[in-house]
Amino acid sequence: MITARTSQLFYGGDYNPDQWPESVWPEDVELMKRAGVNLVTVGVFSWAKLQPAAGAYTFDWLDRVFNLLHQNEILVDLATATASPPPWFSRQHPESLPVNESGVRYSPGSRQHYCPNSTAYRNGSAQLVRQLAARYGSHPALAMWHINNEYGAQVGACYCDQCAAQFRVWLQHKYKTLDTLNEHWATAVWSQSYSHWDEILPPRLAPAFVNPAQQLDYRRFMSDSLLGCLLNEKSVLSEITPQIPVTTNFSGEHGMLKAANYFEWAKHVDFVSFNSYPDPLDADPADVAFAYNLQRGLGGGKSWLLMEQPASQVNWRAHNAVKRPGQMRLWSYQALAHGSDGVMFFQWRAARAGAEKFHSGMLPHGGTETRTFREVEQLGSELKKLSSIRGATTRADVALILDWENFWAVELEARPARINYSELVRSYYRALFEPDVPIDIVPPEADFSPYKLVVAPALYLVRHGVAEGLEAFVDNGGTLVMTFFSGIVDASDRVLLGGYPAPFRKLLGIRVEEFDAFGNQLRHIKTPMRGARCTLWADVIRLESAEAVATFTEDFYAHQPAITRNAVGRGLAYYIGTHLEPAFLRSFLAEICVDCGVRPPMRVPAGVEVTTRSNEHGEFLFLLNHNSTLQFVDIGPRIRRDLLSGEMIKGQCQLAPRDARVLQSA
Amino acid sequence: MITARTSQLFYGGDYNPDQWPESVWPEDVELMKRAGVNLVTVGVFSWAKLQPAAGAYTFDWLDRVFNLLHQNEILVDLATATASPPPWFSRQHPESLPVNESGVRYSPGSRQHYCPNSTAYRNGSAQLVRQLAARYGSHPALAMWHINNEYGAQVGACYCDQCAAQFRVWLQHKYKTLDTLNEHWATAVWSQSYSHWDEILPPRLAPAFVNPAQQLDYRRFMSDSLLGCLLNEKSVLSEITPQIPVTTNFSGEHGMLKAANYFEWAKHVDFVSFNSYPDPLDADPADVAFAYNLQRGLGGGKSWLLMEQPASQVNWRAHNAVKRPGQMRLWSYQALAHGSDGVMFFQWRAARAGAEKFHSGMLPHGGTETRTFREVEQLGSELKKLSSIRGATTRADVALILDWENFWAVELEARPARINYSELVRSYYRALFEPDVPIDIVPPEADFSPYKLVVAPALYLVRHGVAEGLEAFVDNGGTLVMTFFSGIVDASDRVLLGGYPAPFRKLLGIRVEEFDAFGNQLRHIKTPMRGARCTLWADVIRLESAEAVATFTEDFYAHQPAITRNAVGRGLAYYIGTHLEPAFLRSFLAEICVDCGVRPPMRVPAGVEVTTRSNEHGEFLFLLNHNSTLQFVDIGPRIRRDLLSGEMIKGQCQLAPRDARVLQSA
Amino acid sequence: MITARTSQLFYGGDYNPDQWPESVWPEDVELMKRAGVNLVTVGVFSWAKLQPAAGAYTFDWLDRVFNLLHQNEILVDLATATASPPPWFSRQHPESLPVNESGVRYSPGSRQHYCPNSTAYRNGSAQLVRQLAARYGSHPALAMWHINNEYGAQVGACYCDQCAAQFRVWLQHKYKTLDTLNEHWATAVWSQSYSHWDEILPPRLAPAFVNPAQQLDYRRFMSDSLLGCLLNEKSVLSEITPQIPVTTNFSGEHGMLKAANYFEWAKHVDFVSFNSYPDPLDADPADVAFAYNLQRGLGGGKSWLLMEQPASQVNWRAHNAVKRPGQMRLWSYQALAHGSDGVMFFQWRAARAGAEKFHSGMLPHGGTETRTFREVEQLGSELKKLSSIRGATTRADVALILDWENFWAVELEARPARINYSELVRSYYRALFEPDVPIDIVPPEADFSPYKLVVAPALYLVRHGVAEGLEAFVDNGGTLVMTFFSGIVDASDRVLLGGYPAPFRKLLGIRVEEFDAFGNQLRHIKTPMRGARCTLWADVIRLESAEAVATFTEDFYAHQPAITRNAVGRGLAYYIGTHLEPAFLRSFLAEICVDCGVRPPMRVPAGVEVTTRSNEHGEFLFLLNHNSTLQFVDIGPRIRRDLLSGEMIKGQCQLAPRDARVLQSA
Repeated sequence: MITARTSQLFYGGDYNPDQWPESVWPEDVELMKRAGVNLVTVGVFSWAKLQPAAGAYTFDWLDRVFNLLHQNEILVDLATATASPPPWFSRQHPESLPVNESGVRYSPGSRQHYCPNSTAYRNGSAQLVRQLAARYGSHPALAMWHINNEYGAQVGACYCDQCAAQFRVWLQHKYKTLDTLNEHWATAVWSQSYSHWDEILPPRLAPAFVNPAQQLDYRRFMSDSLLGCLLNEKSVLSEITPQIPVTTNFSGEHGMLKAANYFEWAKHVDFVSFNSYPDPLDADPADVAFAYNLQRGLGGGKSWLLMEQPASQVNWRAHNAVKRPGQMRLWSYQALAHGSDGVMFFQWRAARAGAEKFHSGMLPHGGTETRTFREVEQLGSELKKLSSIRGATTRADVALILDWENFWAVELEARPARINYSELVRSYYRALFEPDVPIDIVPPEADFSPYKLVVAPALYLVRHGVAEGLEAFVDNGGTLVMTFFSGIVDASDRVLLGGYPAPFRKLLGIRVEEFDAFGNQLRHIKTPMRGARCTLWADVIRLESAEAVATFTEDFYAHQPAITRNAVGRGLAYYIGTHLEPAFLRSFLAEICVDCGVRPPMRVPAGVEVTTRSNEHGEFLFLLNHNSTLQFVDIGPRIRRDLLSGEMIKGQCQLAPRDARVLQSA
Repeated sequence: MITARTSQLFYGGDYNPDQWPESVWPEDVELMKRAGVNLVTVGVFSWAKLQPAAGAYTFDWLDRVFNLLHQNEILVDLATATASPPPWFSRQHPESLPVNESGVRYSPGSRQHYCPNSTAYRNGSAQLVRQLAARYGSHPALAMWHINNEYGAQVGACYCDQCAAQFRVWLQHKYKTLDTLNEHWATAVWSQSYSHWDEILPPRLAPAFVNPAQQLDYRRFMSDSLLGCLLNEKSVLSEITPQIPVTTNFSGEHGMLKAANYFEWAKHVDFVSFNSYPDPLDADPADVAFAYNLQRGLGGGKSWLLMEQPASQVNWRAHNAVKRPGQMRLWSYQALAHGSDGVMFFQWRAARAGAEKFHSGMLPHGGTETRTFREVEQLGSELKKLSSIRGATTRADVALILDWENFWAVELEARPARINYSELVRSYYRALFEPDVPIDIVPPEADFSPYKLVVAPALYLVRHGVAEGLEAFVDNGGTLVMTFFSGIVDASDRVLLGGYPAPFRKLLGIRVEEFDAFGNQLRHIKTPMRGARCTLWADVIRLESAEAVATFTEDFYAHQPAITRNAVGRGLAYYIGTHLEPAFLRSFLAEICVDCGVRPPMRVPAGVEVTTRSNEHGEFLFLLNHNSTLQFVDIGPRIRRDLLSGEMIKGQCQLAPRDARVLQSA
Repeated sequence: MITARTSQLFYGGDYNPDQWPESVWPEDVELMKRAGVNLVTVGVFSWAKLQPAAGAYTFDWLDRVFNLLHQNEILVDLATATASPPPWFSRQHPESLPVNESGVRYSPGSRQHYCPNSTAYRNGSAQLVRQLAARYGSHPALAMWHINNEYGAQVGACYCDQCAAQFRVWLQHKYKTLDTLNEHWATAVWSQSYSHWDEILPPRLAPAFVNPAQQLDYRRFMSDSLLGCLLNEKSVLSEITPQIPVTTNFSGEHGMLKAANYFEWAKHVDFVSFNSYPDPLDADPADVAFAYNLQRGLGGGKSWLLMEQPASQVNWRAHNAVKRPGQMRLWSYQALAHGSDGVMFFQWRAARAGAEKFHSGMLPHGGTETRTFREVEQLGSELKKLSSIRGATTRADVALILDWENFWAVELEARPARINYSELVRSYYRALFEPDVPIDIVPPEADFSPYKLVVAPALYLVRHGVAEGLEAFVDNGGTLVMTFFSGIVDASDRVLLGGYPAPFRKLLGIRVEEFDAFGNQLRHIKTPMRGARCTLWADVIRLESAEAVATFTEDFYAHQPAITRNAVGRGLAYYIGTHLEPAFLRSFLAEICVDCGVRPPMRVPAGVEVTTRSNEHGEFLFLLNHNSTLQFVDIGPRIRRDLLSGEMIKGQCQLAPRDARVLQSA
């Protein structure tokens, strides 16, 4: 449970009173109360307002905001305001501006225009945070710290000379000697052997493919550099306000911001919070669930906080559809269903001006007489009835492996095929979403002992111990599903010799002799029972101890295995040597789930999602109807309390289009 | 009427004798006379030839050109030759080269490689103009000054440090104080508050959306900077040759060069001239008419000059089709029909070399034995019969509002949808083109009292007084048609609060609760009589005093208004809350035209265009057959003179494929 | 015949022992012998290993490699190791890094990061080559020198200040005076006249089209600059090891690397070698043949060496398919069929790490138990039976003109249409490929007297003497086929006046009045016998002495000539004024072949390719089955020896799918 001064689910949004005349504030607070708001995020972009010049601070306005909110029993998630350095700062420290791959230094004028390794930026932000912590650390309205904003979302990497210097320090720490670095980077290829540390540069624009290990290390280094900014601020906060929880809002499409290895980052925040922006026009509910589920996984199963979602449309797509009636509510409940302890928005009042003015707010330009505000009000009143779910967790039998280093490594250029790692991982999530089996999204080094089934798509890069962990899992009775392009390289992107997939050859009982990448052409596979299409990739597989579960039907690998199964110890290890069409993958995994005793909490109609969370107050059943039609669910003979209506129900239960219900059983 | 030393319509083209051996000149002049040429534009790219080094001028060759032309009764439109600084100039003043958004300084080697705020460029060009004016100002062949060439067409904006400095000066002049600027630019958003003028920069490459008000002001500043170049030269000319009219050739696809707010520019030239380059493969005659019509509008209704068109194909498209037989003639007459007092080409003789050698000339590489030259000769001989139309003007009942600041603002990023402003405005023009109702294209601050119908597409940005002007127009009996995304922001791109479209809410009798942008998906509307498709956008409209004319048929706004009508005073205000398919829009506007008494000069078959111009010599009826088939037009019982054949005609009148006729009635 | 210390066909590949532990080397050599390898290319990317610092050389490892190979009777193609300067070098000489058009200096980290005009690079590479030549020049294993690697493939042009300075030197050498340069570059256009040599710059990023003659000269200069790098190294080798043949590996899609005018380059190597990388997914066998054939043409008919091909898949496409079973063997035989005296691969052992680790090797990651290695072994054993073909040449009756200056000039921007010169030339090659007539690919200045038919697609730019050569050819009884966009400009891209196509007007007996470019729209032509589609382009042709062979059927040039034929002296000159569909072009050229007595060596089924090579050992007939089905060929009554099986055969001969046979007749 997220520690804070409330027993309610969090409800609110970013609040930017500094963008409005002070005369508007009383209306803000009145309407917040009407909407059920109990927490607001303040100050995300207030650096210039808080510190209009080096050494000069103006806190009086923020004092008044704090007091006004506190008087109205609204808590503050105080941002450290370091997300957008003020113009005076950029002018005084031009070297703090980030530089792109081609050497172009970004200009101020938008946001996130700082190099993560800039000493000036690090010092300047720490000073500001110190001031804020000193002034507001003991204010009774302060519920949590919100460090910076969406680290790495706009500037995922900087290539400036400061970064080059820090990269060398990072590399020296990692490799100790140049010889070791040369060995890991395989610099004998293309005459890249380094004879002095100062020769090493970021992977800047070059005539051909830049050394992949160098690129991979630069990804690691940049994730660490951005994380370093967070730790730089956090160390001040830990010193001054150790009792106040600290978070930063994670972001990225489907929760997978490429710039930040969030499994590492999550270790350094008191709870995970997340900004969720699916496209109302065409988002797949399974993808929305995936991102939410990932947040739970990042935090090791703990509840997290939906820190931002739009009340309706955003401003940054080419075409920005509004959320349909009920869609915002449904996606909010979906967040709760996957472990969030609240629902927060960007932002409270739609901006009057600037780049985000067409981003919807809880309170639109049109005021309270709008569908959006009505839906915000309704949700706020409903959440008050759901306080008991705070901190509740979910137990899963299935683990899906996701790994940032594989995200980076699989998508480097000069691979056999262009694989969209996120899409591939999500295709497996989507296939498991419909049978509604509870899933944990975990890193490759996770403890697999709680699981019956582990799914590992494209585990291309294999760090020390990973293969051993999976072997032990299967040996102990687990079922493992791996895919093509797994077990290929070590952590430095060097091929693991001995026949693909070397570290998993014994576990899988196969040898992959070659892999054929044929783009979006179609091939086919068949099992004894049925056929299916596949695309992108075909492994030419030699069986060692495994048996073929499906075979290709054409090309020179016709009649050769496409999917294999190997019995190891008390478990089973499957290998899928191609990219399967969704329908087949879904039924294939469903059969495996049945075989290994993985089942959903309840059978529900297609398009209805069901999840559970449990805590000391009992088990909460979430029923979410993603259809635009009425659905009926048989919840069985057990009597449960519908938390919204207060009714005790059992048996047939009705779900209106886009409706959600939360049922509690003791 | 354009003042000049001739009573003829202008006919000729750019003449670049300095690109040819002098031995070719006599043939040039002989063939010009054969073709009916009476005006040539000289010197557009002659700076290097006129001034081979700082302080050194070589005018002898131009003296000979002037004298040769004068002896042959051909007038000179003398260019100021400042469009392409010579290599010695760029080398001597490297800081005069423009810089792009990413900080790359453009290289010489093509043309228009000058920063509009370069002091060296401003001084250098003024010195050259002074020399030219002093030497040729009183030459009897000099008919007009042609300042520079297509300002802003290749370099619409420069981002160099000189521009940054001048931008600050421009801003200081506009806002006086930093506080005012901070307020207008809403710099409280994203921590952009300026504490010193020197912190302000051009909207250079930045990590995210640059402040929209900053971008908008930079557009204004750059248009003013380019205009400043024109005024810099004009002030010299006004001083030395006040009697000679001054123009510069406007350009841009459909006449809408984004870089230059031509409504402002037109105030500073003695007459508007325009370069017209529709694609012979697929240009819509309505779009060609739009651009011509716009020139008339820019000049406040005065006649203008078609300064450049190709005799046949151009060189700069991926694929450059030739003009079909008769197409050049037809589009020439179309220019006359919309107010041009002549027909000029780029260029007289097709270049032998350089980047434009595959751009057609009046005299092709193939010489006189070519279709192109035959058509040029024919047109030249016809124009001699049309002198009486000079200065004739057109009276319109319909005004179409076009506004450069809306062009800029609507197309900034981070809008609800990607709207092509030019395409949207032209879609309304095209809808009105077929019924042949005379239209004026006007700015939002126009005097609307002469009109019965005003059409205002996407009047998103509303300056002071604009709403009041439209209200008064409707109140006095006018009919107004507005569209979605109107009345949203003030001149600094700040939302006008109070419910969309705030400044027009009362006038339109509606409130727009939200707008849904769905890209190229299709939705539908229906009226009591029929249905139609719409795309891109749907407003969710609440009726206040208006009534619904059409409703949406689907999505959550089904049965809600898509088009509304509000009776205000003696007039009517329509609002169209979506992007309508062309056929429906055409018939819808046609009905409105009928209702408010707007009619065409004559009923003509589809694909035949009819316009009128009038002056002291009577009314001229232009009939243009854009079809490739023979057409018949009933011109009624009034007897008119066919200016080309000299016949007096009435009743049924025949138009060959692509033919044009000009009929005069006293 | 390529001089070297073997009587075998060359078989082997790039060998990079410096990327592997020395313990792997014995296995390498053992497996090489098993695979039949007799030549390996060593040291291509070994600069950093050979010279770890300025002045420090480490040759001991290479000594051991040489000795190991020599002991095992494997020859060495020793690379000069200059393709990728080491990090220490780039750090010490930052100005040696190349700069792109926008002024961005490339970073090291990949390869080919040198400016070809860098003095430091030229000196550094010459010093290294001198060391290598001194040390290994007399080693008995040394078979040939391999200078650098794929010059210009990654960095085809540099735009730095050193290049600018050298460009001026090159121009001074070419034009002597600025006046001459101004005249050739037509700098009177757009005010570009130069008054000082130092004003001249590379064609860097500019606001509009850069002077085309400047661009063309920069292409020439850059090809010469890269060639200068080769000559810089070669001069050292010629001095120290005059007896060792020198080559460099040519590259580029279809053999047409745009950066290097290979007809000029081929004059400076002892034999041509080539890197062949068709896409296994969709390569047209005719295109593969084209590239091979071109190598023969570059060398003036002499045999050449397939220096690199992948054993299976590559790593640099988006999706990298494996070569199908038999495909590598078939394409290898196709190289032999078109004049190669060996089959070499990149590379021997698939790399374990780095950017090319997913590029296949002769010895895959999976080792010897792989299809790839089995196919490599088989081919190696077969080649030993084919030694007698070394040096054999082919006699052709058809010449196809290809010209790098036209490649550059036709594809410059601001042309009537976007023509893909390579595709256009290959469309003529493909049309002639199916009838299997032997073709030479030759430059425009070739001696045409050996040929019956000369085909010249898009001979747009015409240097001195070219028109005269073609005239003489036709006059003496030859048949010439030219196409649209021929005879348009001189070597400085200046239009040849006098009516298109001026230099060929008399020869072709036509005048082209205008050319219409209509993109991918379709038009049609018809002949007395049939109709066909055409696209892209239509010439409006006036017959002078020619007759029409086909006419257009539509548009304003309907019924006017599309293809013409002119009898000149004892020969015929055809002109094709549009871009014809493949099927028509094939049958049209086939008829012309029949008419002028050009015939294939043998009639073969569709998809079977037949070529011949001859030397003192007799005539070798190559039969290549590109089909995936069994084919039968009637080889006639003459008895021939099947070199692979050793059988003597005649009459019906069988070809398995993707099979190849080589039949010798005395």
